[in-house]
Order: sequence, then C-alpha cells, then structure tokens
Amino acid sequence: MPTVSEPVPALDALAEALQRLPGVGPKSARRMVYHLLERDREGARSLTGALEQALERVRHCRRCNNLTESELCPVCASPRRDQSFLCVVESPSDIPSVEQAASFNGTYYVLMGRLSPLDGVGPEDLAFEGLERRVAEGVQEVVVATNATVEGEATAHYIRERLEPKGIRVTRLAHGVPLGGELEFVDASTLDRALTRRYPLEDD
Amino acid sequence: MPTVSEPVPALDALAEALQRLPGVGPKSARRMVYHLLERDREGARSLTGALEQALERVRHCRRCNNLTESELCPVCASPRRDQSFLCVVESPSDIPSVEQAASFNGTYYVLMGRLSPLDGVGPEDLAFEGLERRVAEGVQEVVVATNATVEGEATAHYIRERLEPKGIRVTRLAHGVPLGGELEFVDASTLDRALTRRYPLEDD
Repeated sequence: MPTVSEPVPALDALAEALQRLPGVGPKSARRMVYHLLERDREGARSLTGALEQALERVRHCRRCNNLTESELCPVCASPRRDQSFLCVVESPSDIPSVEQAASFNGTYYVLMGRLSPLDGVGPEDLAFEGLERRVAEGVQEVVVATNATVEGEATAHYIRERLEPKGIRVTRLAHGVPLGGELEFVDASTLDRALTRRYPLEDD
Repeated sequence: MPTVSEPVPALDALAEALQRLPGVGPKSARRMVYHLLERDREGARSLTGALEQALERVRHCRRCNNLTESELCPVCASPRRDQSFLCVVESPSDIPSVEQAASFNGTYYVLMGRLSPLDGVGPEDLAFEGLERRVAEGVQEVVVATNATVEGEATAHYIRERLEPKGIRVTRLAHGVPLGGELEFVDASTLDRALTRRYPLEDD
C-alpha cells in the first residue's frame, strides 16, 4: 500500500491475510483488497459470512475423514454407495476429482496426508488405525488413489503390506498415457510405465 | 464439491464467495476452500478478522477519495507533499503505482471512475465537483494519470476543458515505449505515438 510515512494498517493486514490463500501473491492480494473495498463491499461481507459459517460448521466425517457438516459425509451416508469398496485418498480435496469419474460407486477413506520420511511424516502421523477399523466393517477391496509421487507410491505399498494379510484385495489406480494425450507431451517415465503395462487390444 | 445426493452447503457457499475475488474461478476457489479448512484454519480466521476490520475502518479520504482509516489519507496529511501539484487518477488502486515512481511528491485526487458514455457514466457520476473544490485550494498543476484507454483519454480531455479556463496547468502522463521494452513487443499505436513525440537526444 502507499509507501508514505503513515501507513493504512487495515489495508496491509487484509492484503497479508489474503496472501495465505494458495496462488495469491502480493500483487493479486493488492488487487483483491481494492476490489473488495472499492467495488464489492457486499462481496467482502458475504466472504466474511461464508468463512465464519464454514469454520463453524465444517468438520471431518466420523467414518472417512471427508469434509462434512453432519456426523457422516454425504458419500458415507448414501444408501446407494458400495460400503465394501473403499477408495483411499490423501486429502479431502482429492474426493471431488474421483467423484467426477462416473464409474466409482464405492466409498472413501481419507488418510490425511502421505508417508514422507524426509518431512518426518511416519505411519503414526496418518489415519491408518482408522483405516483398519473402517476396513474391518466388511470392506472387500481397497483401491489406493494416493498421488503418483514417490511419497504417494510408498504410502500405497505400506497400505498393501498392512491390509493384504487381512485378506483385503488392495489395488492401485492405473498409470499410463492420459486419454486424449499426445505421445509427444507424455513424460518418459509415464510412457515407460505405459509400455510395461501394455495390454491386448481385445480387452477394450 | 461432491456431486452426490446431499451437498455440503457451507463448502459451496464459501467457494462461491471466494469467486467474487478478481481472478478466482471455480477451480481455484475449490483449492482455496480445502486449503483454508484443511491446512490453514488459523489463516481463515485471520482473513475473517482482517476483512471485518477493513470493512469497518477503511473509508475515503475527505480531501482526495483515496482509501484511508483517518479523515485524511497519509498523502494528504503529509507536510512533505506538495499540495499545489495534483495527480488525478481513476481509482484508489492507481495510487500505489504512482507512489512507486519516486519522482512524484505531489498529492492525489481520485475521480472514482472514468467517463464512459457507452456504460452510461457521465460527468455527474464522477467526482468532478470535488476536484474543482480541491483545485480551488491553491493547486497550480494537475497531471492527469487516467488510464491510456479511450475512456481514460476522453476523461483527460474533459478535465482539461474544465480546469484550463481557471488558469490551471493541465498535463498528461507521457506515452511511449516502456523502459527496458523491446521494440518487437511494443504495439503499433504506442510505437506510432512514440515516433510522433520523438525528442532530441540531448534532452536526456
């Protein structure tokens, strides 16, 4: 804000608070401040209200750790979802992506992170005990949908080691060339994996 | 959010409120929602507080319409600023940009918009009367720093017509090739203007 002697602290404080949002740097924060105070005070008020309500109401689903306003999240509460088929994700924000894949009618379990020894995140820091309790409720298959990163892969292998001895079928999301993707733009390790896992065409 | 039967209204409401911020679409709003509720509830709380404080405290400077928490904005209140040299801008958000140009030690006047007949914005919708009152307080020169758009130029000419008869020197920000700009990337009309306004090198 103005680089003059006396500052306008409320503007600076708002700009700073906005920079805690992902993808918002000093310049866009400043643009937002002026937008909210100059052109959309109504919007600023509705943002305050929505934030307060969300902070107050949104919590974790007792069963799967998804975000929800009730005891159970909409997916866990739905009678139409297959409670014996579990998709394990790292974070609640991964769930909407899987939901967009129309083929999934199972339920979720959110690990609340991934194993990352370098960051000091071990099995005791994630929700593996809850996962085992959930699996004991008659789950037959767990598809591990952690990210395709080194940590995500390690987490997937750890889950397999922990659940397979209990007779659970543990699967992993397939890796390969994205649909609609041009080979030219696919990275070498993905292409390598797609080659190794090639399948006979009649399977389609 | 989840595309299942029962929604999570507090999440949807927050995502919608965030989309009133400039440059925030549905995808980044969703990312912000999860970030705030999952990883940074503290940040969400400080954003609520900062918004409330800014809404309550920030108003327009009585003298120049800049945003401020006091009667007068820091620039108008400063004894070190030249009160007889006025820079006219469209919006308070233009002021920090001019402040960064170290050479300006005058004061500001914010028009609160620009003339735009197509959008139904005429002289009576802008703060021209306040500008005339401000100019009557011993202003000698007004540099018009409205945007270099059709509307900004029209507004500049209107100000000249209104103030020059009162014996005020009315100037305009220079247009031309940006410093450090490569000719290849300068648009034709700017280059045309830069050619017309070319100046003898010894002036530098």
